[in-house]
Amino acid sequence: MIPMEIAPMLYPQDDRYVLTSPTAMPQAGGFLWNRRMMIQTTCRGYATAQFMQPEPGKYSHGPNMEAKSFMQPEQNYYAHHPGRFVYVKDEDTGELFSAPYEPVRGGLDRFAFSVGRTDLQWTIEKLGIRIDLTLALPVDDVAELWTVAVTNLTERARRISIYPYFTVGYMSWMNQSAEYRHDLGGIVATCITPYQKLDDFFKNRLLKDRTVLLCEQAPDAWETGQKVFEGEGGLHAPSTLAPALLPCGDARYETPAAVVQYRLALAPGEAATRRLLFGPAFDDAEIALLRQRYLSEEGFAAAARDYAAYIAEGDGVLQIVTPDPELDNFVNTWLARQVYYHGDVNRLSTDPQTRNYLQDNMGMVFVKPAAARAAFLHALSQQEANGAMPDGILLFEGAELKYINQIPHTDHCVWLPVCLQAYLDETGDSAILDVPVSAHGGDVKSAFERICLAMDWLLLRRDARGLSYIEQGDWCDPMNMVGYKGRGVSGWLTVAAAYALNLWADVCAARDDEAMQARYRDGAAAMNASANAHLWDGSWFARGITDDDVKFGVAADTEGRIYLNPQSWAFLSGAANDAQRAQMLPEIDAQLKTPYGVQMFAPPYSAMREDIGRVTQKHPGSAENGAVYNHAAVFYIFSLYTIGEADRAFDALRKMIPGPDLADYLQRGQLPVFIPNYYRGAYHEYPRTAGRSSQLFNTGTVAWVYRCLIEGLCGLKGDANGLTVNPQLPSGWPGMTVTRRFRGATFEVDIRRGAVGRVTVTCDGVELAAARIDKIDAGRTYRLQVLVP
Amino acid sequence: MIPMEIAPMLYPQDDRYVLTSPTAMPQAGGFLWNRRMMIQTTCRGYATAQFMQPEPGKYSHGPNMEAKSFMQPEQNYYAHHPGRFVYVKDEDTGELFSAPYEPVRGGLDRFAFSVGRTDLQWTIEKLGIRIDLTLALPVDDVAELWTVAVTNLTERARRISIYPYFTVGYMSWMNQSAEYRHDLGGIVATCITPYQKLDDFFKNRLLKDRTVLLCEQAPDAWETGQKVFEGEGGLHAPSTLAPALLPCGDARYETPAAVVQYRLALAPGEAATRRLLFGPAFDDAEIALLRQRYLSEEGFAAAARDYAAYIAEGDGVLQIVTPDPELDNFVNTWLARQVYYHGDVNRLSTDPQTRNYLQDNMGMVFVKPAAARAAFLHALSQQEANGAMPDGILLFEGAELKYINQIPHTDHCVWLPVCLQAYLDETGDSAILDVPVSAHGGDVKSAFERICLAMDWLLLRRDARGLSYIEQGDWCDPMNMVGYKGRGVSGWLTVAAAYALNLWADVCAARDDEAMQARYRDGAAAMNASANAHLWDGSWFARGITDDDVKFGVAADTEGRIYLNPQSWAFLSGAANDAQRAQMLPEIDAQLKTPYGVQMFAPPYSAMREDIGRVTQKHPGSAENGAVYNHAAVFYIFSLYTIGEADRAFDALRKMIPGPDLADYLQRGQLPVFIPNYYRGAYHEYPRTAGRSSQLFNTGTVAWVYRCLIEGLCGLKGDANGLTVNPQLPSGWPGMTVTRRFRGATFEVDIRRGAVGRVTVTCDGVELAAARIDKIDAGRTYRLQVLVP
Repeated sequence: MIPMEIAPMLYPQDDRYVLTSPTAMPQAGGFLWNRRMMIQTTCRGYATAQFMQPEPGKYSHGPNMEAKSFMQPEQNYYAHHPGRFVYVKDEDTGELFSAPYEPVRGGLDRFAFSVGRTDLQWTIEKLGIRIDLTLALPVDDVAELWTVAVTNLTERARRISIYPYFTVGYMSWMNQSAEYRHDLGGIVATCITPYQKLDDFFKNRLLKDRTVLLCEQAPDAWETGQKVFEGEGGLHAPSTLAPALLPCGDARYETPAAVVQYRLALAPGEAATRRLLFGPAFDDAEIALLRQRYLSEEGFAAAARDYAAYIAEGDGVLQIVTPDPELDNFVNTWLARQVYYHGDVNRLSTDPQTRNYLQDNMGMVFVKPAAARAAFLHALSQQEANGAMPDGILLFEGAELKYINQIPHTDHCVWLPVCLQAYLDETGDSAILDVPVSAHGGDVKSAFERICLAMDWLLLRRDARGLSYIEQGDWCDPMNMVGYKGRGVSGWLTVAAAYALNLWADVCAARDDEAMQARYRDGAAAMNASANAHLWDGSWFARGITDDDVKFGVAADTEGRIYLNPQSWAFLSGAANDAQRAQMLPEIDAQLKTPYGVQMFAPPYSAMREDIGRVTQKHPGSAENGAVYNHAAVFYIFSLYTIGEADRAFDALRKMIPGPDLADYLQRGQLPVFIPNYYRGAYHEYPRTAGRSSQLFNTGTVAWVYRCLIEGLCGLKGDANGLTVNPQLPSGWPGMTVTRRFRGATFEVDIRRGAVGRVTVTCDGVELAAARIDKIDAGRTYRLQVLVP
Repeated sequence: MIPMEIAPMLYPQDDRYVLTSPTAMPQAGGFLWNRRMMIQTTCRGYATAQFMQPEPGKYSHGPNMEAKSFMQPEQNYYAHHPGRFVYVKDEDTGELFSAPYEPVRGGLDRFAFSVGRTDLQWTIEKLGIRIDLTLALPVDDVAELWTVAVTNLTERARRISIYPYFTVGYMSWMNQSAEYRHDLGGIVATCITPYQKLDDFFKNRLLKDRTVLLCEQAPDAWETGQKVFEGEGGLHAPSTLAPALLPCGDARYETPAAVVQYRLALAPGEAATRRLLFGPAFDDAEIALLRQRYLSEEGFAAAARDYAAYIAEGDGVLQIVTPDPELDNFVNTWLARQVYYHGDVNRLSTDPQTRNYLQDNMGMVFVKPAAARAAFLHALSQQEANGAMPDGILLFEGAELKYINQIPHTDHCVWLPVCLQAYLDETGDSAILDVPVSAHGGDVKSAFERICLAMDWLLLRRDARGLSYIEQGDWCDPMNMVGYKGRGVSGWLTVAAAYALNLWADVCAARDDEAMQARYRDGAAAMNASANAHLWDGSWFARGITDDDVKFGVAADTEGRIYLNPQSWAFLSGAANDAQRAQMLPEIDAQLKTPYGVQMFAPPYSAMREDIGRVTQKHPGSAENGAVYNHAAVFYIFSLYTIGEADRAFDALRKMIPGPDLADYLQRGQLPVFIPNYYRGAYHEYPRTAGRSSQLFNTGTVAWVYRCLIEGLCGLKGDANGLTVNPQLPSGWPGMTVTRRFRGATFEVDIRRGAVGRVTVTCDGVELAAARIDKIDAGRTYRLQVLVP
């Protein structure tokens, strides 16, 4: 077994993160992506991969006919879950194990799962044999590049068979088959995507219906039928591993598997390496091309270089050194990468939700601002004639709104000024506002005019009380039945719209457009007033009022009593005055704060409440029903930085990444290589599961975390003229150092506490009159000493 | 291991069928159904169950989010496939096994899977312990009634734990949970069926979203979380079975499982019995009611009595004693049961395909003719105004056409006279023709008029050559691209329509409606002539002509060269004259006959042929692509009896049930307790898989097999006036005896070969002038001696 006493279970190492137990956090894993695909693996070898053609498809399937769905949190792994495994057999003794852990499981002498920014690696030792596995991706092709290295750790010669076993699974009820193709040098599983409606046939014709496992070196044997491979032994001890050679069979309308066998004779200390390529393909020609392009030592090396360059494009603008090394590791190594993933591939969706698309691209403001600019304009090009934004943004010709994007939500317009503000602050590129944007087959308006139209739509879609209609939902809380009859209103949306209007009024002011400034400033004030008049519940703001005039998210409720979002955004919109804030913050602390973060609301609903709808159907603590929903928590954090609540902000922020103690990692089951969309909530109701990570890395959270760190914690926010400096250190910190890239310049910032009354900035030895740097020279490195009170 | 040398592997026993190896035919199983549900289990313990609410639902799921689909052939079983298992642990030694075989597998001392007409039983022995499992169903509730008996076979006292483990699986991403409910006496797993569109919420409200395992006796411990139950040991050796007691945990948004533990102390020879109920429920009240109604020795016994009575209602009209005891066993015990299943529950569909609904109810003609009568009239009530029949018949309010029923097919009208003929022959109830049938909100026409309208539609939907348009398909061969542009025609449909028109002309003649008789007789003749003019290919009839005027199913084709259906129906329609028959039959023998039956066409397509479509996408040999598709084969058999080809007919018929040698059973993997929809074909291309059973018992085949046996082999067909006698024994048989129920009378028929020139019938000792009995007295038993040439 793993010598736990000598190996710490979890540790960062250079720009990697390492887990040395396969059993402590079985769901923990990492993910890689490129421009066409994504793969998430667990430490134990299970994998979930999808690729775009252009809709998301799979090449490694479950054992049965799987439903198509959006990416789900808290994946359930089971014996035949898709995965990538290598069985290892000592030919002299018949002993068997598997790398990385599944399917044989059982005691390993050593286990290390090492998550890198550009690859995933495992090192396994057992029976005196070391297996090193590496998974890498190319930049533009859909292909997993696997390196399997086997080392004889003993002083005697060994005869070993290794059997890479890559799951193909149930491909289709049309023509699934598999065979080893000598001409192509690997296993080719084929199927035809089924259709019933004739039109679908023509859509399906170009799908990559093959799954291939290509082998650099010809294997000694193989098997392509799942059932034959397992035999009566089962996946944990496949019967066909006992004989000298795999049966080399085909699969004919039988579930395929891709298993190859290499027989190795290794001298003491000798190592052997095998390279494999796994992925989908359209035809033989594409398979041959993939082989030629990648399947060699040079091909793998070139792909790794190209991929490293691709990932480096997402390095972002921030490096920090603080008293919290785990935070530093996460921020410096992982956070911008996750932001970049969202912005570069849009969660592998062809119709991202409009709010997600805008926020994911808000993250790109700090990574690739030109991409963010293009995305904002692309979104505006799909604005409806009445100013409303659609529920999803179509990214490809032929894409269509699916799943939740077919349900009308009323918040999408809010995100335009909210996300654009970050872009304007970071780039100063106010010219974007004057770009003409064509929508609806030729109706041309400037970006500025379009966002004005969106703000007008928000002002219009209110009831007689001045509160915003919710219809079948607004952001994050899937309350699809609060307002479906057309009368219910959203407390959050009312203050969120007020915040958006205020931001937009600022933009109008910067353009010296007094009339428009007044229009939106007045609108914001009116909405804030309405919120106070109708939704202030004594110590916090209510979440909304249903079609049947039932106020909820109020003290009288025993479940869903207080919601976080209306409070956070009341801070942002100005609806909450100082006295109200002083009441609200302790209520949030008392009712929503948990050891794993701030819950989105509490107490969770234990049963269906039909006047609210879907959120109450979710399991208490999971997803939105009382979870620590990080996307909501980060708005709270953002609002706290906005109102100068540095300690509360950092406390909540810090809980988004696991640590610092082992128990916290174990409870969350999460390596700190990404922020998941939620941790289980219901801390009081279901303590056993509270804190558990969803493991779902698709979340609008990360763009905001990055923004909170840059603009809040580090206090290095741009504006029209330059960089403002206002760090908000947690009170326990003596200081921190920051490297911040901004408008082509580099700022090396040393932040310390000092006996100062306000933030004091010394730039290259010269103390500045104000805590800001104007007229920034691109290419220059600024060295700032910052003293904070 | 099983002492194969002393136990025959397969044998019929009374009205059961027994398999004594869990490994020889791993997919082999049986099925039970009642008015609300169906369950199919394999001999090894995997199970597929569904119930109607009113659309088909599940209460035991796969481990992942499963796609909804129609029932698929050749189910793929895998470690976490839904199933019902009992782990058994010797508490003194810690040794473990499981009944019936999965998930532990491994050597058993004895295994017997015994399929009954009203229950499924297993007997397992290992470690000196016998486990007897029995599954039964009630008639009207959705509930599995399980009896688990444990016997100490040794001479010493034993301490044993048994752990019934019933899979719940991945229920839903809404609120799946499970816990043991002391108040209800069992494990209750709950979820909420997810919805995104608001309307679906209101549809989903009454779904039975709970899965319950109720225990007559309170268990000593339990576990409700799948992952916890398995631990690192996995399903084949769950970690939680090692300690004395299961952990008694709950599941909270975790995949549920239903596992209970009984600790038993058994004296030598002592037995203990536990009764369990497994199924879905709506709420606590329903669970309590199920418990009270069934969960006792008396409750199980009463349910078994009621269920036996229900199944006995489907006994049918035929018992035979022939030189082929396996045939007798199948016909006397199983065949009518499968016919009854189809007719009574319509394959658990709310929108059966029109052709299936009519043919399934053609089977009911022999089982419950009143039900068949009602079904024919119900189908006619959904006739379209232009005479066309819809693609599916809606059985429940709110039902809708799904899957393939959304694709337009052109054959449905054919089945009206074809199926009605059997009804008229069996019952003599020509009054059905004058029943007024209201369709389309009040348009009333008699059944006769409606079928005339349908025949007129068939006559109309032809091209200038007089051939029937195929559009996106006709029966059985899913050739969805032959005629989607509106020009392609079907050779089969042309002769099938001619057959239907001829049958209908007979009905018109019987009503002395000369004009209508002439209309349809002339129409049939014209269609037969068109078929001969345009589709006769020299030695057989072509399958059709595509939109682009390509004739297919012809000698020039290298794949799909000859199709069975156009030949069979040309025999029935009269399109084929004697000379043609003499050419066609040897071609069918040479090109389509295999050891496992007659293929639907040959050679199978190896790749997509875009002018034909979906059939060519299926795997060669599977389903329609060159399979031994029993529904097509049985029409060939029916047509052979019609033209007096008794030996060819019996040869093909006999291949529909496995036997007589063990190799044949093993190749097919099928117990002879039902006829599957197909056996794999492609005998020449893929001999390894040829003959393999689809295991899918939903098939229109069985009604026709029953009809072929009654009217063909036994030759005891009704007509307007009575019973005709014309047995068609295979040439190797000296005779057979038959008990035939007909119009309330019973005919005990002894058939022997004799030195006679024609069939000679002696009734109760008196030789009849003609081989028929007229004016039948209901209630009377007729004893017939029949001599055949």
